[in-house]
Amino acid sequence: MRCTKCHNEATIYIRRHNTAFCKEHFIEYIYGQVEKAIKKYKMFEKTDKILVAVSGGKDSLALWDILNSLGYNSDGLYIDLGISEYSEKSKEVAQKFAESRNLKLHVVSIKDIYGVGIKEIAHKNRKPPCSTCGVIKRYIMNLTAKELQYKVIATGHNLDDESAILLGNILHWQIDYLKAQSPILFEDEAGFARKVKPLYRISEYETSAYCIMKKIEYILDECPMSIDAQSLRYKGMLNTLEKDSPGTKEQFYFGFLEKGKNYFIPEKREIKLNSCKICEQPTTSEICGFCRQITKANLEPLNMKEFILRLKDSNGQV
Amino acid sequence: MRCTKCHNEATIYIRRHNTAFCKEHFIEYIYGQVEKAIKKYKMFEKTDKILVAVSGGKDSLALWDILNSLGYNSDGLYIDLGISEYSEKSKEVAQKFAESRNLKLHVVSIKDIYGVGIKEIAHKNRKPPCSTCGVIKRYIMNLTAKELQYKVIATGHNLDDESAILLGNILHWQIDYLKAQSPILFEDEAGFARKVKPLYRISEYETSAYCIMKKIEYILDECPMSIDAQSLRYKGMLNTLEKDSPGTKEQFYFGFLEKGKNYFIPEKREIKLNSCKICEQPTTSEICGFCRQITKANLEPLNMKEFILRLKDSNGQV
Ligand SMILES: [Zn+2]
Ligand SMILES: [Zn+2]
Ligand SMILES: [Zn+2]
Ligand SMILES: [Zn+2]
Repeated sequence: MRCTKCHNEATIYIRRHNTAFCKEHFIEYIYGQVEKAIKKYKMFEKTDKILVAVSGGKDSLALWDILNSLGYNSDGLYIDLGISEYSEKSKEVAQKFAESRNLKLHVVSIKDIYGVGIKEIAHKNRKPPCSTCGVIKRYIMNLTAKELQYKVIATGHNLDDESAILLGNILHWQIDYLKAQSPILFEDEAGFARKVKPLYRISEYETSAYCIMKKIEYILDECPMSIDAQSLRYKGMLNTLEKDSPGTKEQFYFGFLEKGKNYFIPEKREIKLNSCKICEQPTTSEICGFCRQITKANLEPLNMKEFILRLKDSNGQV
Repeated sequence: MRCTKCHNEATIYIRRHNTAFCKEHFIEYIYGQVEKAIKKYKMFEKTDKILVAVSGGKDSLALWDILNSLGYNSDGLYIDLGISEYSEKSKEVAQKFAESRNLKLHVVSIKDIYGVGIKEIAHKNRKPPCSTCGVIKRYIMNLTAKELQYKVIATGHNLDDESAILLGNILHWQIDYLKAQSPILFEDEAGFARKVKPLYRISEYETSAYCIMKKIEYILDECPMSIDAQSLRYKGMLNTLEKDSPGTKEQFYFGFLEKGKNYFIPEKREIKLNSCKICEQPTTSEICGFCRQITKANLEPLNMKEFILRLKDSNGQV
């Protein structure tokens, strides 16, 4: 097969677009799709400081590499959840990547700060680990972005992730989630950084191929605590349909963004926000979810804020 | 396993409701679900004359049997499309059922009226057979209902059919279809009989079980011309999910009716309807779709109307 652009030997075939690319033009295609996503949703500008949530997996590293290659001003944030070997390996991979590109990576280690990992905190709280993990990760991302003045938080969600999430939301008609699902979340008015998903046009297969072509080392494993069987099932279903009619996934998700979403318009939220009595972060309650969970686990919530403020001091440019 | 109602030996287990039934209470359950559907959507009353579209398959025969058992006033309409052996067999089965219950079955045979089957008409028209078939079947149903004064046309669409259709409409975000999809279609203002789907709460598995328990003979084959691979795929996908989490299908379709549908509200149609210049049936064009296709095939559209008017004369009570 020949590259659709230059007619040299192709390295990859994108079935849903019926196009083939050599390495060079595949990378160009990926850049094009990401730029299209950024422009279409006005995610950020070249002058904005972007914080990339880095897990050590293919998607987040591909995202960081692409943003950097396109000349965006991006630093990484790695949250070490203290899940034994998995966390060690993924941190190493993220650090190695950052060093190789001379990029700044903030590392926030739950275990260094609290002496225990996410598992123990969840256990002390009698909460499922994934919900605790979600609260803690979101808090760290928001707080880091706020204190270190990042305008935007970028995550590596790809087309497969977003279409599987959409399918789940549709199968259960979770209207609030349908209203919220978008490649961009303006949370500015809530006092949080904007959240964006610049890879929403790129499939999982394509981010893997990108990493391979760019020789980006990444960890293959998913978080051992969050093997989400339901989401894997939805991805599997969509892949089966995709095999029979290439383009199904893209049609489904892009169709949602272009047509379906007109019917699920988020209401202007009139939520009264308070400052958390402990950490002063915005919250709808008296005390924010993070401080509640950490306190319940007999730990000191403010240790996190202090740690992040120290990152700020060491963050030369701020 | 024991019947949830009477604790006798159960014959069937409904996994999504986690209930088991003996034969008697399964039939009671089916009646209950159909009555619920009829009442919820105000489909029809005991005094209304109902025309059941009968194909000879399990769903339409189960439907007719249920409506009859519940004391509704229903006649059948079998449309013989002239598809060789398939049509012969299915007509026989439908007739045998009607005789056994002493029910009136109208038979409209394309081949008897036009000398050719649906395949030849579609071929002469250079149209795909299924679209021709749809136009012709809808025309015959509407015309029969109108001329023989049936208030309602009932079809055997079950939960599996409706949820597979819904999935297809959602995957492609066919907004107009989403707006139209419903267990009841009021077409009264367009001059057509109301269309209803009283089996929308019953799964395919349950209609089969109903036929077996009631010793209703039905044809297993699908129409050989309309093996809809896409719809089979959607059904397969939903069945896979159903297996892993029983209730998915029902949640998906009922959730659409109860929540999703609030977001896809049909606009009040301001369509100007004419009388077809040939047959006088309502149409948005000068000449209705049926008359156009039949004329194109060098056949006489009015032969159909004449045939149906003769059914009227022989229809004692009218
Ligand atoms: Zn090329
Ligand atoms: Zn707090
Ligand atoms: Zn019983
Ligand atoms: Zn006509």
